[in-house]
Amino acid sequence: MAINFDHLMSLKIPDATQTYTRHDSILYALGLGCGLGPSADDELTFVYEENQQAIPTMAGVLAHPGFWIRDLDTGIDWVRVVHGEQTLEMHAPLPVEGTVVGKNKVVDVIDKGEGGGALVASERKLFDAATSELIATVGQVTFCRGQGGFGGPERPKTQPHTIPDRAADVSVTLETSQQSALIYRLSGDFNPLHADPKVAKAAGFDRPIYHGLGTYGVAARAILQGACGFDAAKIRVMNARFTAPVFPGETFLTEIWRDKNEISYRVRCGERDLIAINNGKVILND
Amino acid sequence: MAINFDHLMSLKIPDATQTYTRHDSILYALGLGCGLGPSADDELTFVYEENQQAIPTMAGVLAHPGFWIRDLDTGIDWVRVVHGEQTLEMHAPLPVEGTVVGKNKVVDVIDKGEGGGALVASERKLFDAATSELIATVGQVTFCRGQGGFGGPERPKTQPHTIPDRAADVSVTLETSQQSALIYRLSGDFNPLHADPKVAKAAGFDRPIYHGLGTYGVAARAILQGACGFDAAKIRVMNARFTAPVFPGETFLTEIWRDKNEISYRVRCGERDLIAINNGKVILND
Repeated sequence: MAINFDHLMSLKIPDATQTYTRHDSILYALGLGCGLGPSADDELTFVYEENQQAIPTMAGVLAHPGFWIRDLDTGIDWVRVVHGEQTLEMHAPLPVEGTVVGKNKVVDVIDKGEGGGALVASERKLFDAATSELIATVGQVTFCRGQGGFGGPERPKTQPHTIPDRAADVSVTLETSQQSALIYRLSGDFNPLHADPKVAKAAGFDRPIYHGLGTYGVAARAILQGACGFDAAKIRVMNARFTAPVFPGETFLTEIWRDKNEISYRVRCGERDLIAINNGKVILND
Repeated sequence: MAINFDHLMSLKIPDATQTYTRHDSILYALGLGCGLGPSADDELTFVYEENQQAIPTMAGVLAHPGFWIRDLDTGIDWVRVVHGEQTLEMHAPLPVEGTVVGKNKVVDVIDKGEGGGALVASERKLFDAATSELIATVGQVTFCRGQGGFGGPERPKTQPHTIPDRAADVSVTLETSQQSALIYRLSGDFNPLHADPKVAKAAGFDRPIYHGLGTYGVAARAILQGACGFDAAKIRVMNARFTAPVFPGETFLTEIWRDKNEISYRVRCGERDLIAINNGKVILND
């Protein structure tokens, strides 16, 4: 298999439409661990119908086109891909229920040279099906191991967001449960790696790992608690760089640095000396 | 409001039809705490698609007619009712997905005299919509406080199932989580008593309580582990008498007595000196 720049950049990824209910929004939040720990009452707004809010990162799982890297003619060796980065820009608050349409495209393919792999950046624009309003732009960078040196155009090396050189302004500790991956997958990512011990072992893990986007959602819980007073509409941008897999049931410590409307963050796995998300950046609405 | 025997016995409760997926069956099992604790791998059969089985007590929530005691002209003071007993007879294994029809009727109304309240027994026959096969008969006894003395026919006093006078043969300890009621309610019982601290306080509880049928489902988990080798098809009958409310996150100790194909059981709340289900009876298939 080989990557072809022009082919990927013009790849047609089918649109997806999804109707979701307020109970689907609750299920997503439960998969992030909302309702566990001492902030359970404050998080009720994400897991109960009264004054209900959707967690913005749910935009990342709605109207998802599925595993198009495997399912379409991409030339990508899908068994070797790693989810590298996730970005989100909210253009409007995410409704707790509705029908949305996702329109996807590949926006960049970066050649890191022989032995360096390739980076495929894709983007999904999420629209409200009823009003055609743009709700969110969801971005993903996929690292394709062993697929560099395909002769793609040269790119300036992108710099990850810099975490300030001072102690964190706020730290938020949040629990997940042994069930968190089993709950999270009901929001649409049924990869057996997150449920089946045999599959996890074959992939080199002691047990099923938590979804990367689950950890990203836990970070959103932490930002909502530590910097937004649990007001979901405050988050305008939320970007993450995944640095290590984690297991459901672990405790996550999110360190938060605040500089006016810009937040830097990092997610540490509480039980182990390990950073699960680094170089995180959030921009808050005024 | 007053109860009228003939009126209740001839009450028309609308049929309900429900299409459910294997992910709904997983969601139900997660609401019982499946996947928590040391037996998580054995319980994978209830929360993962491979060799998936439905937990038989899910028949109690499928094609449910809703809160007909409140919604129909029953003469029952619905704010004062208490869920007293639950029975289940499986006529065929419950499919992990499908479309089912529930047909409901009141089967008995017992007058316990002035000050003694009334008991309303109802029954739901659950049919496979595609084949018309009878899958399960679900029974419920509702205690209507303050509504005795309505002149109903005399009845012999029913005797609860007797627990053997010896130490339990097997005991199974199972965890639930702080999220269990929030997950369980997504299977259809959205009573705010199980989610909203304000509603729970108004009802006299420190915090939201777990669903009675949730505890009943945890008992099914325990029977499946302690007496069935996790084979859901083994359970033919499962009856329970609710004796105390419990909270999500508590640990439940199910004591099991086995006499050939008949099992007696009792569910204790591990943290408190309290019996949540008593006089429980299960009949196993050969």
